[in-house]
Amino acid sequence: MKELKEKIAKEGVILPGSVLRVDSFLNQQIDVELLSKCADKWYETFKDLGITKVLTIESAGIAIAALTALRFGVDAVYAKKTRNSMIGDDYYSTKVVSYTHGQVYDVIVSKKFISPDDRVLIVDDFLANGSALKVLIGLTEMGGATVVGAGVVIEKTYQNGGKDIRELGYRVESLAKIRSMDISEGIVFED
Amino acid sequence: MKELKEKIAKEGVILPGSVLRVDSFLNQQIDVELLSKCADKWYETFKDLGITKVLTIESAGIAIAALTALRFGVDAVYAKKTRNSMIGDDYYSTKVVSYTHGQVYDVIVSKKFISPDDRVLIVDDFLANGSALKVLIGLTEMGGATVVGAGVVIEKTYQNGGKDIRELGYRVESLAKIRSMDISEGIVFED
Repeated sequence: MKELKEKIAKEGVILPGSVLRVDSFLNQQIDVELLSKCADKWYETFKDLGITKVLTIESAGIAIAALTALRFGVDAVYAKKTRNSMIGDDYYSTKVVSYTHGQVYDVIVSKKFISPDDRVLIVDDFLANGSALKVLIGLTEMGGATVVGAGVVIEKTYQNGGKDIRELGYRVESLAKIRSMDISEGIVFED
Repeated sequence: MKELKEKIAKEGVILPGSVLRVDSFLNQQIDVELLSKCADKWYETFKDLGITKVLTIESAGIAIAALTALRFGVDAVYAKKTRNSMIGDDYYSTKVVSYTHGQVYDVIVSKKFISPDDRVLIVDDFLANGSALKVLIGLTEMGGATVVGAGVVIEKTYQNGGKDIRELGYRVESLAKIRSMDISEGIVFED
Protein backbone atom coordinates (compact mmCIF):
# COMPACT_ATOMS: atom_id res chain seq x y z
CA MET A 1 0.00 0.00 0.00
CA LYS A 2 1.85 2.96 -1.40
CA GLU A 3 0.48 5.69 0.85
CA LEU A 4 1.30 3.66 3.95
CA LYS A 5 4.87 2.97 2.83
CA GLU A 6 5.37 6.65 2.12
CA LYS A 7 4.12 7.51 5.58
CA ILE A 8 6.46 4.96 7.18
CA ALA A 9 9.41 6.20 5.14
CA LYS A 10 8.68 9.80 6.06
CA GLU A 11 7.71 9.54 9.73
CA GLY A 12 9.03 6.20 10.98
CA VAL A 13 11.98 6.40 13.35
CA ILE A 14 14.39 3.47 13.56
CA LEU A 15 15.52 2.78 17.12
CA PRO A 16 18.13 0.37 18.44
CA GLY A 17 17.00 -3.26 18.71
CA SER A 18 15.13 -3.26 15.40
CA VAL A 19 12.31 -1.15 16.82
CA LEU A 20 10.40 1.05 14.40
CA ARG A 21 8.69 3.97 16.10
CA VAL A 22 5.55 5.01 14.25
CA ASP A 23 3.88 6.90 17.05
CA SER A 24 2.96 9.85 14.83
CA PHE A 25 0.32 7.89 12.91
CA LEU A 26 -0.14 4.44 14.41
CA ASN A 27 0.94 3.99 18.03
CA GLN A 28 0.01 7.11 19.91
CA GLN A 29 -1.23 9.63 17.41
CA ILE A 30 -3.53 7.82 15.02
CA ASP A 31 -4.08 8.80 11.42
CA VAL A 32 -7.61 7.46 11.21
CA GLU A 33 -7.98 8.27 7.51
CA LEU A 34 -4.93 6.17 6.70
CA LEU A 35 -6.12 3.33 8.94
CA SER A 36 -9.52 3.46 7.26
CA LYS A 37 -7.73 2.89 3.96
CA CYS A 38 -5.96 -0.09 5.52
CA ALA A 39 -9.39 -1.37 6.54
CA ASP A 40 -10.60 -0.93 2.95
CA LYS A 41 -7.71 -3.09 1.73
CA TRP A 42 -8.52 -5.86 4.17
CA TYR A 43 -12.18 -5.57 3.21
CA GLU A 44 -11.26 -6.17 -0.44
CA THR A 45 -9.36 -9.30 0.56
CA PHE A 46 -11.71 -10.79 3.14
CA LYS A 47 -15.16 -9.41 2.32
CA ASP A 48 -16.62 -12.65 0.93
CA LEU A 49 -15.42 -14.83 3.77
CA GLY A 50 -18.20 -14.25 6.28
CA ILE A 51 -16.24 -12.32 8.90
CA THR A 52 -18.32 -11.95 12.09
CA LYS A 53 -15.73 -10.33 14.37
CA VAL A 54 -12.46 -8.42 14.29
CA LEU A 55 -10.04 -9.39 17.06
CA THR A 56 -6.91 -7.59 18.26
CA ILE A 57 -4.78 -7.04 21.36
CA GLU A 58 -4.53 -3.85 23.41
CA SER A 59 -3.44 -1.12 23.09
CA ALA A 60 -1.97 -0.47 19.66
CA GLY A 61 -4.39 -2.74 17.85
CA ILE A 62 -7.60 -1.20 19.16
CA ALA A 63 -7.97 1.73 16.77
CA ILE A 64 -7.12 -0.55 13.86
CA ALA A 65 -9.70 -3.11 14.97
CA ALA A 66 -12.40 -0.48 15.52
CA LEU A 67 -11.99 1.04 12.06
CA THR A 68 -11.78 -2.39 10.43
CA ALA A 69 -14.86 -3.63 12.27
CA LEU A 70 -16.71 -0.53 11.11
CA ARG A 71 -15.81 -1.38 7.50
CA PHE A 72 -17.05 -4.96 7.88
CA GLY A 73 -20.15 -4.02 9.87
CA VAL A 74 -19.27 -6.29 12.80
CA ASP A 75 -18.10 -5.88 16.39
CA ALA A 76 -14.45 -5.52 17.38
CA VAL A 77 -12.97 -7.39 20.34
CA TYR A 78 -9.67 -6.70 22.03
CA ALA A 79 -7.74 -9.14 24.15
CA LYS A 80 -6.32 -7.63 27.32
CA LYS A 81 -2.84 -7.90 28.76
CA THR A 82 -2.73 -8.53 32.46
CA ARG A 83 -0.18 -9.43 35.07
CA ASN A 84 -2.92 -10.40 37.51
CA SER A 85 -2.61 -14.14 38.01
CA MET A 86 -6.24 -14.46 39.24
CA ILE A 87 -7.86 -14.87 35.85
CA GLY A 88 -10.73 -17.22 36.59
CA ASP A 89 -12.91 -19.37 34.40
CA ASP A 90 -14.60 -16.62 32.42
CA TYR A 91 -11.60 -16.04 30.18
CA TYR A 92 -9.50 -17.78 27.62
CA SER A 93 -5.92 -16.96 28.47
CA THR A 94 -2.42 -17.53 27.23
CA LYS A 95 1.02 -16.06 27.81
CA VAL A 96 2.96 -13.72 25.55
CA VAL A 97 6.33 -11.99 25.71
CA SER A 98 6.30 -8.37 24.62
CA TYR A 99 8.87 -7.87 21.89
CA THR A 100 9.26 -4.21 22.76
CA HIS A 101 9.34 -4.49 26.54
CA GLY A 102 10.60 -8.03 27.15
CA GLN A 103 7.92 -8.68 29.78
CA VAL A 104 5.65 -11.69 30.13
CA TYR A 105 1.91 -11.04 30.22
CA ASP A 106 -1.19 -13.12 30.34
CA VAL A 107 -3.40 -12.25 27.42
CA ILE A 108 -7.05 -12.83 28.10
CA VAL A 109 -10.35 -12.58 26.29
CA SER A 110 -13.76 -13.19 27.77
CA LYS A 111 -15.32 -16.47 26.70
CA LYS A 112 -18.51 -14.53 25.98
CA PHE A 113 -16.95 -12.88 22.96
CA ILE A 114 -15.51 -15.84 21.06
CA SER A 115 -17.98 -18.54 20.04
CA PRO A 116 -17.86 -21.48 17.63
CA ASP A 117 -20.01 -19.60 15.11
CA ASP A 118 -17.49 -16.78 14.85
CA ARG A 119 -15.37 -16.25 11.77
CA VAL A 120 -12.59 -14.01 12.99
CA LEU A 121 -10.33 -11.54 11.25
CA ILE A 122 -7.33 -10.78 13.43
CA VAL A 123 -5.66 -7.37 13.02
CA ASP A 124 -2.57 -5.84 14.55
CA ASP A 125 -0.07 -3.04 14.02
CA PHE A 126 3.13 -5.09 13.65
CA LEU A 127 4.10 -8.60 12.68
CA ALA A 128 7.71 -9.45 13.53
CA ASN A 129 8.34 -12.68 15.45
CA GLY A 130 4.62 -13.35 15.37
CA SER A 131 4.05 -13.84 19.08
CA ALA A 132 1.02 -11.55 19.35
CA LEU A 133 -0.62 -13.00 16.25
CA LYS A 134 -0.03 -16.56 17.43
CA VAL A 135 -1.61 -15.71 20.76
CA LEU A 136 -4.67 -14.25 19.06
CA ILE A 137 -4.97 -17.30 16.82
CA GLY A 138 -4.71 -19.48 19.92
CA LEU A 139 -7.40 -17.56 21.80
CA THR A 140 -9.73 -17.70 18.79
CA GLU A 141 -9.30 -21.43 18.44
CA MET A 142 -9.71 -22.03 22.20
CA GLY A 143 -13.20 -20.62 21.65
CA GLY A 144 -13.84 -23.00 18.78
CA ALA A 145 -14.05 -20.12 16.33
CA THR A 146 -12.48 -19.99 12.87
CA VAL A 147 -9.52 -17.77 12.06
CA VAL A 148 -10.33 -16.50 8.58
CA GLY A 149 -7.11 -14.54 8.30
CA ALA A 150 -5.03 -11.72 9.63
CA GLY A 151 -4.54 -8.13 8.57
CA VAL A 152 -1.28 -6.51 9.60
CA VAL A 153 -0.25 -2.92 9.02
CA ILE A 154 3.53 -3.42 9.05
CA GLU A 155 5.34 -6.74 8.65
CA LYS A 156 9.07 -7.13 9.21
CA THR A 157 9.77 -9.92 6.73
CA TYR A 158 13.33 -10.29 7.99
CA GLN A 159 11.85 -11.88 11.10
CA ASN A 160 10.11 -15.22 10.88
CA GLY A 161 6.64 -14.58 12.30
CA GLY A 162 4.85 -14.08 9.00
CA LYS A 163 6.54 -17.05 7.35
CA ASP A 164 5.73 -19.33 10.30
CA ILE A 165 2.08 -18.32 10.42
CA ARG A 166 1.57 -18.65 6.67
CA GLU A 167 3.20 -22.09 6.77
CA LEU A 168 0.58 -23.08 9.34
CA GLY A 169 -2.01 -22.30 6.68
CA TYR A 170 -3.27 -18.90 7.81
CA ARG A 171 -3.75 -16.10 5.33
CA VAL A 172 -1.90 -12.95 6.36
CA GLU A 173 -2.41 -9.69 4.49
CA SER A 174 0.33 -7.20 5.42
CA LEU A 175 0.05 -3.75 3.91
CA ALA A 176 3.71 -2.70 4.23
CA LYS A 177 6.47 -5.29 4.24
CA ILE A 178 9.87 -4.25 5.48
CA ARG A 179 12.69 -6.36 4.09
CA SER A 180 15.45 -4.68 6.06
CA MET A 181 15.86 -1.80 8.40
CA ASP A 182 18.79 -0.23 10.15
CA ILE A 183 19.82 3.16 11.36
CA SER A 184 22.48 3.75 8.70
CA GLU A 185 20.71 2.19 5.67
CA GLY A 186 17.15 3.19 6.52
CA ILE A 187 14.06 1.18 5.64
CA VAL A 188 13.90 -1.10 2.59
CA PHE A 189 10.46 -2.38 1.62
CA GLU A 190 9.61 -5.58 -0.25
CA ASP A 191 8.64 -5.29 -3.99
CA MET B 1 -29.06 8.99 23.73
CA LYS B 2 -31.86 6.49 23.80
CA GLU B 3 -30.18 3.61 21.99
CA LEU B 4 -27.17 3.83 24.27
CA LYS B 5 -29.28 3.83 27.44
CA GLU B 6 -31.19 0.81 26.19
CA LYS B 7 -27.94 -1.00 25.54
CA ILE B 8 -26.65 -0.16 29.02
CA ALA B 9 -29.92 -1.25 30.63
CA LYS B 10 -29.90 -4.51 28.69
CA GLU B 11 -26.24 -5.51 28.83
CA GLY B 12 -24.63 -3.55 31.66
CA VAL B 13 -23.73 -5.59 34.73
CA ILE B 14 -23.57 -3.87 38.10
CA LEU B 15 -20.68 -5.10 40.22
CA PRO B 16 -19.78 -4.35 43.83
CA GLY B 17 -18.03 -1.01 44.40
CA SER B 18 -20.25 0.92 41.99
CA VAL B 19 -18.56 -0.64 38.97
CA LEU B 20 -20.63 -0.96 35.81
CA ARG B 21 -19.35 -3.65 33.49
CA VAL B 22 -20.13 -2.86 29.87
CA ASP B 23 -17.60 -5.15 28.27
CA SER B 24 -20.07 -6.50 25.72
CA PHE B 25 -20.19 -3.24 23.76
CA LEU B 26 -17.68 -0.75 25.15
CA ASN B 27 -14.78 -2.19 27.13
CA GLN B 28 -13.70 -5.38 25.45
CA GLN B 29 -16.17 -6.15 22.73
CA ILE B 30 -16.87 -2.91 20.90
CA ASP B 31 -20.13 -2.10 19.15
CA VAL B 32 -18.59 0.18 16.56
CA GLU B 33 -21.95 1.13 15.04
CA LEU B 34 -23.17 2.38 18.40
CA LEU B 35 -19.93 4.25 19.06
CA SER B 36 -20.16 5.84 15.63
CA LYS B 37 -23.56 7.16 16.66
CA CYS B 38 -21.97 8.54 19.82
CA ALA B 39 -19.41 10.24 17.58
CA ASP B 40 -22.24 11.71 15.50
CA LYS B 41 -23.75 13.20 18.64
CA TRP B 42 -20.49 14.84 19.66
CA TYR B 43 -20.05 16.06 16.11
CA GLU B 44 -23.43 17.82 16.30
CA THR B 45 -22.33 19.52 19.51
CA PHE B 46 -18.75 20.44 18.67
CA LYS B 47 -18.58 20.61 14.86
CA ASP B 48 -18.31 24.41 14.60
CA LEU B 49 -15.62 24.75 17.23
CA GLY B 50 -12.54 24.03 15.13
CA ILE B 51 -11.54 20.69 16.69
CA THR B 52 -8.06 19.67 15.45
CA LYS B 53 -7.50 16.58 17.57
CA VAL B 54 -9.36 14.00 19.64
CA LEU B 55 -7.56 12.95 22.83
CA THR B 56 -8.21 10.00 25.11
CA ILE B 57 -6.44 7.61 27.47
CA GLU B 58 -5.67 3.94 26.84
CA SER B 59 -7.19 1.41 26.61
CA ALA B 60 -10.94 1.82 26.81
CA GLY B 61 -10.94 5.25 25.20
CA ILE B 62 -9.05 4.33 22.06
CA ALA B 63 -11.87 2.91 19.95
CA ILE B 64 -14.08 5.82 20.96
CA ALA B 65 -11.38 8.32 20.02
CA ALA B 66 -10.66 6.64 16.68
CA LEU B 67 -14.30 6.64 15.60
CA THR B 68 -14.80 10.20 16.82
CA ALA B 69 -11.66 11.43 15.06
CA LEU B 70 -12.91 9.80 11.86
CA ARG B 71 -16.16 11.76 12.18
CA PHE B 72 -14.30 15.04 12.67
CA GLY B 73 -11.66 14.31 10.01
CA VAL B 74 -8.76 14.80 12.43
CA ASP B 75 -6.16 12.61 14.13
CA ALA B 76 -6.76 10.81 17.40
CA VAL B 77 -4.16 10.75 20.18
CA TYR B 78 -4.12 8.49 23.19
CA ALA B 79 -2.26 9.12 26.40
CA LYS B 80 -0.47 6.10 27.78
CA LYS B 81 -0.41 4.70 31.28
CA THR B 82 3.00 3.66 32.50
CA ARG B 83 4.61 2.58 35.72
CA ASN B 84 8.05 3.24 34.28
CA SER B 85 9.50 6.15 36.23
CA MET B 86 12.01 6.99 33.45
CA ILE B 87 9.76 9.22 31.41
CA GLY B 88 12.18 11.78 30.03
CA ASP B 89 11.71 15.20 28.51
CA ASP B 90 9.78 14.14 25.42
CA TYR B 91 6.53 13.71 27.29
CA TYR B 92 4.00 15.65 29.27
CA SER B 93 3.16 13.52 32.26
CA THR B 94 0.93 13.49 35.28
CA LYS B 95 -0.28 10.98 37.82
CA VAL B 96 -3.68 9.31 38.04
CA VAL B 97 -5.31 6.76 40.31
CA SER B 98 -7.33 4.12 38.51
CA TYR B 99 -10.86 4.05 39.92
CA THR B 100 -11.29 0.41 38.94
CA HIS B 101 -7.91 -0.92 40.01
CA GLY B 102 -6.82 1.50 42.74
CA GLN B 103 -3.30 1.76 41.29
CA VAL B 104 -1.26 4.87 40.62
CA TYR B 105 0.04 5.38 37.08
CA ASP B 106 1.91 8.04 35.26
CA VAL B 107 -0.09 9.15 32.28
CA ILE B 108 2.04 10.47 29.46
CA VAL B 109 1.60 11.97 26.05
CA SER B 110 4.36 12.88 23.65
CA LYS B 111 4.98 16.63 23.39
CA LYS B 112 4.97 16.19 19.61
CA PHE B 113 1.25 15.56 19.58
CA ILE B 114 -0.09 18.47 21.63
CA SER B 115 0.73 21.93 20.36
CA PRO B 116 -0.56 25.44 21.11
CA ASP B 117 -2.52 25.50 17.85
CA ASP B 118 -4.52 22.44 18.83
CA ARG B 119 -8.17 22.63 19.76
CA VAL B 120 -8.79 19.39 21.56
CA LEU B 121 -11.91 17.31 22.09
CA ILE B 122 -11.35 14.86 24.94
CA VAL B 123 -13.34 11.62 24.89
CA ASP B 124 -13.61 8.75 27.33
CA ASP B 125 -15.84 5.82 28.21
CA PHE B 126 -16.75 6.78 31.79
CA LEU B 127 -16.93 9.92 33.88
CA ALA B 128 -17.28 9.22 37.61
CA ASN B 129 -14.89 11.02 39.95
CA GLY B 130 -13.35 12.74 36.94
CA SER B 131 -9.74 11.78 37.51
CA ALA B 132 -9.05 10.62 33.97
CA LEU B 133 -10.73 13.63 32.41
CA LYS B 134 -8.86 16.01 34.69
CA VAL B 135 -5.59 14.37 33.72
CA LEU B 136 -6.38 14.72 30.02
CA ILE B 137 -7.34 18.36 30.51
CA GLY B 138 -4.07 18.88 32.36
CA LEU B 139 -1.96 17.24 29.64
CA THR B 140 -3.70 19.31 26.95
CA GLU B 141 -3.06 22.53 28.81
CA MET B 142 0.57 21.61 29.56
CA GLY B 143 0.98 21.65 25.78
CA GLY B 144 -0.59 25.09 25.55
CA ALA B 145 -3.52 23.69 23.60
CA THR B 146 -7.19 24.54 24.11
CA VAL B 147 -9.66 22.10 25.60
CA VAL B 148 -12.80 22.69 23.54
CA GLY B 149 -14.82 20.16 25.47
CA ALA B 150 -15.26 16.56 26.45
CA GLY B 151 -17.43 13.77 25.14
CA VAL B 152 -18.23 11.00 27.58
CA VAL B 153 -20.19 7.84 26.85
CA ILE B 154 -21.44 7.14 30.39
CA GLU B 155 -21.48 9.62 33.26
CA LYS B 156 -22.27 8.62 36.81
CA THR B 157 -23.89 11.84 38.02
CA TYR B 158 -24.00 10.56 41.60
CA GLN B 159 -20.25 11.09 41.69
CA ASN B 160 -18.81 14.57 41.50
CA GLY B 161 -16.45 14.47 38.52
CA GLY B 162 -18.82 15.92 35.96
CA LYS B 163 -20.03 18.66 38.29
CA ASP B 164 -16.46 19.63 39.22
CA ILE B 165 -15.28 19.80 35.63
CA ARG B 166 -18.30 21.79 34.43
CA GLU B 167 -17.80 24.23 37.31
CA LEU B 168 -14.27 24.80 36.04
CA GLY B 169 -15.88 25.99 32.79
CA TYR B 170 -15.41 22.97 30.55
CA ARG B 171 -18.23 21.75 28.38
CA VAL B 172 -18.95 18.05 28.94
CA GLU B 173 -21.35 16.18 26.70
CA SER B 174 -22.31 12.85 28.29
CA LEU B 175 -24.55 10.59 26.26
CA ALA B 176 -25.95 8.47 29.10
CA LYS B 177 -26.21 9.88 32.61
CA ILE B 178 -26.70 7.45 35.46
CA ARG B 179 -28.36 9.01 38.49
CA SER B 180 -28.14 5.94 40.67
CA MET B 181 -27.09 2.37 40.39
CA ASP B 182 -27.11 -0.57 42.73
CA ILE B 183 -27.42 -4.29 42.50
CA SER B 184 -30.92 -4.49 43.96
CA GLU B 185 -32.47 -1.37 42.36
CA GLY B 186 -30.69 -1.53 39.00
CA ILE B 187 -29.72 1.49 36.91
CA VAL B 188 -31.68 4.76 37.01
CA PHE B 189 -30.86 7.28 34.29
CA GLU B 190 -31.26 11.06 34.43
CA ASP B 191 -34.28 12.60 32.62
